[in-house]
Amino acid sequence: MSGVLYGVGLGPGDPELMTLRAHRLISQAAVVAYPTLAGGESFARSIAADIIPAGADEIVMDVPMTTAREPAQAAYDKGAAEIAAALESGRDVVCLCEGDPFFYGSFMYLFARLSDRYEVQVVPGVTSITTCAARAGMPLAARNERLTVLPGPLPEDELRARIDGAESVAIMKVGRHLPKIRSVIDALGLTDHAMYIERASLPDEVVCPLADAPEKAPYFSMILLTKGADPWL
Amino acid sequence: MSGVLYGVGLGPGDPELMTLRAHRLISQAAVVAYPTLAGGESFARSIAADIIPAGADEIVMDVPMTTAREPAQAAYDKGAAEIAAALESGRDVVCLCEGDPFFYGSFMYLFARLSDRYEVQVVPGVTSITTCAARAGMPLAARNERLTVLPGPLPEDELRARIDGAESVAIMKVGRHLPKIRSVIDALGLTDHAMYIERASLPDEVVCPLADAPEKAPYFSMILLTKGADPWL
Ligand SMILES: C[S@@+](CC[C@H](N)C(=O)[O-])C[C@H]1O[C@@H](n2cnc3c(N)ncnc32)[C@H](O)[C@@H]1O
Ligand SMILES: C[S@@+](CC[C@H](N)C(=O)[O-])C[C@H]1O[C@@H](n2cnc3c(N)ncnc32)[C@H](O)[C@@H]1O
Repeated sequence: MSGVLYGVGLGPGDPELMTLRAHRLISQAAVVAYPTLAGGESFARSIAADIIPAGADEIVMDVPMTTAREPAQAAYDKGAAEIAAALESGRDVVCLCEGDPFFYGSFMYLFARLSDRYEVQVVPGVTSITTCAARAGMPLAARNERLTVLPGPLPEDELRARIDGAESVAIMKVGRHLPKIRSVIDALGLTDHAMYIERASLPDEVVCPLADAPEKAPYFSMILLTKGADPWL
Repeated sequence: MSGVLYGVGLGPGDPELMTLRAHRLISQAAVVAYPTLAGGESFARSIAADIIPAGADEIVMDVPMTTAREPAQAAYDKGAAEIAAALESGRDVVCLCEGDPFFYGSFMYLFARLSDRYEVQVVPGVTSITTCAARAGMPLAARNERLTVLPGPLPEDELRARIDGAESVAIMKVGRHLPKIRSVIDALGLTDHAMYIERASLPDEVVCPLADAPEKAPYFSMILLTKGADPWL
């Protein structure tokens, strides 16, 4: 009997925003797996650090920092092979995912490699997007409003066109794209409708109007924008 | 000293998908509040039923079933006044919200009425959208893909235009709009890319390709659609 692979969402960073199921699965895990970026610390692992059992085996997938695909593919191939070996030996594997596993998460690369051969269960988690909205006191969408989620690395022209045609907008992966995103939102005259949120739910969280955002944004930052005429019923 | 109003996301239905914080706040609540629709059972309350303390006071906001605004506004005005009275007496109030409070949730109407006078804390929850994705084995968005969330009640023309210009799409509030949504997706030749999910995470959950969806959809149903060329890295 092969083990089960669990892709477990851990929420946005505050360990108390983990689900009861995530808490149960991790506290009982014999094997945990998680990605790291270019040898750095794993954010997902840090969220769960206090409840990973002392004796658990850890499978680390180190993804190199490059825009080329092959090195990242190779890292997930290698990680998938190690996870498969654990599953073959009958052990369950709990893969730690920040936020939700299927919302811009790298777990989908393991899912694609393993779900045809093994039982895979995905445990949804609280996403960064609703956490940022909660922290900013900014409802995302009401009634029949549309919500558009855009990654910050998109080209300037596409960002402008997409934001222009949208109602509520969340822009993920801001980081070094902040100046570009800012100038797009400014040009559309929407700066007064936008909030900037950094490391939501963590002790060093930043929440402010986009106009007051710092010059430099870390990777874990987001911009929320609502043009919605009347979210207040 | 006034009490604090907590808007607490409960997740999509399975009580184990509640966060640790939601669990803590509800188990210790002196006053809980929640909306019901036209005298029906409250879905949010049913998710939390096992952990609401026996002696807790309950503030029920009954929202009438009508598309006119005034009766719903009156229901939230009355609920907000009752909540304010409890807060004035120094008691905290825990408002129960299915999914996430600020993601198409009615909590925002209470937030709008009360957040200028009282401390309000919003506790994000797992949304239906990532839960449906998890249950359907369908990653929502990867890398630089865009994600569009559309409410099913939108007019047919607008749905068609929005789906046509989108990459990944989630359609909420399907219910009686299923035939309209189906014909739009069919006309765009996208039926093979769409999944239908009903009551995700609950015992009577339904998950199937849109082509196999039942004739009638309940209110708690969703359609997910991905055109993404290469989510697999
Ligand atoms: C690769 S995506 C992962 C998203 C994650 N799976 C989720 O469900 O939120 C990383 C991006 O998520 C956003 N993000 C994640 N955690 C965040 C936090 N605590 N505060 C603000 N943004 C966050 C940032 O935009 C970041 O660039
Ligand atoms: C008023 S919205 C509330 C959304 C909720 N606040 C959230 O975060 O998911 C109600 C819609 O959410 C979706 N929904 C909520 N729970 C669901 C579930 N368990 N399964 C499928 N869809 C669900 C349906 O599309 C439903 O019409």
